Amino acid sequence: MATLIGGIEGGGTKFNCVIGHSPDKVLARTSFPTTTPDETLARAIEFFKEGEAEYGALRAIGVASFGPVGLHRQSQYYGYITTAPKPHWAYTDVVGSISRALNVPVAFDTDVNGATLGEGLLGAARGLKNFVYVTIGTGIGAGVVSNSEIVNGAMHPEIGHMLLPRFDEKNDFRGSCPFHGDCLEGLASGPAIEARWGRKGQDLAPDHPAWALQARYLAAMCVNLTLCYAPERIILGGGVMSQKQLFAMVRTEFTQMLNGYTTLPAAADPENYIVPSALDGHSGELGALIAAEKLFKQSDYQ
Amino acid sequence: MATLIGGIEGGGTKFNCVIGHSPDKVLARTSFPTTTPDETLARAIEFFKEGEAEYGALRAIGVASFGPVGLHRQSQYYGYITTAPKPHWAYTDVVGSISRALNVPVAFDTDVNGATLGEGLLGAARGLKNFVYVTIGTGIGAGVVSNSEIVNGAMHPEIGHMLLPRFDEKNDFRGSCPFHGDCLEGLASGPAIEARWGRKGQDLAPDHPAWALQARYLAAMCVNLTLCYAPERIILGGGVMSQKQLFAMVRTEFTQMLNGYTTLPAAADPENYIVPSALDGHSGELGALIAAEKLFKQSDYQ
Repeated sequence: MATLIGGIEGGGTKFNCVIGHSPDKVLARTSFPTTTPDETLARAIEFFKEGEAEYGALRAIGVASFGPVGLHRQSQYYGYITTAPKPHWAYTDVVGSISRALNVPVAFDTDVNGATLGEGLLGAARGLKNFVYVTIGTGIGAGVVSNSEIVNGAMHPEIGHMLLPRFDEKNDFRGSCPFHGDCLEGLASGPAIEARWGRKGQDLAPDHPAWALQARYLAAMCVNLTLCYAPERIILGGGVMSQKQLFAMVRTEFTQMLNGYTTLPAAADPENYIVPSALDGHSGELGALIAAEKLFKQSDYQ
Repeated sequence: MATLIGGIEGGGTKFNCVIGHSPDKVLARTSFPTTTPDETLARAIEFFKEGEAEYGALRAIGVASFGPVGLHRQSQYYGYITTAPKPHWAYTDVVGSISRALNVPVAFDTDVNGATLGEGLLGAARGLKNFVYVTIGTGIGAGVVSNSEIVNGAMHPEIGHMLLPRFDEKNDFRGSCPFHGDCLEGLASGPAIEARWGRKGQDLAPDHPAWALQARYLAAMCVNLTLCYAPERIILGGGVMSQKQLFAMVRTEFTQMLNGYTTLPAAADPENYIVPSALDGHSGELGALIAAEKLFKQSDYQ
């Protein structure tokens, strides 16, 4: 009998849950809004219990969660959503709740790292050993794979707050980040676009000057990611990147800003270097399944 | 008989060579100017031959070289200094020359990664699994250790050219980088200081306003390194950092710029987070010995 594993992409807006034999053999899928921790986790557990009744016992579950999350096994908050600003969710024991209810080992990572794993195995970075996945939406976050491993230092990267040059200095917009004002997130996240232009990005025409400015900030971000990580590809996802016209603009600005520097071959071919997600919103849940599969293969449960 | 290994720190100005039983048991050391490749490599080979006559056969040599260098074993230029602007040195086969002359396996890395290894084993990052070493001199380069491994993506990081905010916008200095103008290296390297203020850094008084500005650029760099790599410590070395007053200034600016963001505990204690090199110019040659030792332990030559 083929192994059965589960995956949860726990986002701040909705939870996506899947059951399958492997990331490319999904049997069942559900999605529901993120409400309180008790209610939301109970719905996830219910989905997996129904799945077990239909398909058999789950051997591992992977969770890719919004955060901040506790990733260090030595920490008393390993497996928790920790200092999350989302009401009710601070210090929620996600791993403990799920593993106790279902009696399975649970793998845990950030939602962004989960999506990164998904893109690496089945999406736009398939076969690559070095790449960066960036999600640009309410916040900006990145997962980094270097030599086939997710880069977590003493914690996961938080490139959303990197400091960048200003490209519209004469405007008096100070940036929307409550910590830094005009860091990357304060200049180029969804809320920053709305704060700068007075309307949500989705209400701005594709040729609105907001996008030319946005492309410059994202290009500067790509330059810094290129120099920091020497990836073979940068994948841009998240709500803001549903503005597809941005890709060509970011590539043009990126090439101008980098200006021929770096011997990294991939960066010389921007069409294949700065690309959209290939998983159409499923990268996180697939990444969670990948984490579950890896945990199962490592564990004594096999 | 104890193993004998050699190390070369090949800098653009001078070569430092060592022989020892291990990085903390050095038997002999020499240093000479970097002239032509033929002459310089011959002097290094001569030093090791004399060492073999005195102490016995070398089992491995590590080279930490100025660059750019070829680090990918699949490349036809693995072990070469490749597109170096330094006269005569472009496409010099360093590994091949040394391994043929001495008939030993040769490990190869950048000078910065070598110094990073040295700081990790014996210097300011001893015992840490996650840290960044930055050298600020003629250029700016960094070695990054994440989960005890040097981070090389498809090539080594080149953080010297990261894009940063401008802090003296009203001045008409455009930055000294021939590629990017006012990238990090164009604003904060030794040549940038000289271009901006009309005098070399070593000729500016410790309370010259140049250092307050320099501290802000280095602090912004430290913020971005913190967010990209989540290190436990950032070590600043190189000629510019012989201006010891910079450390306190960088720490103050760093704390202000980061502004309480990040749950990375190390960043909340800047005295222990942004620190000088502890190896007094020997980190590169010691790193080369570490690379040699690692190669020896992995190899069939044992």
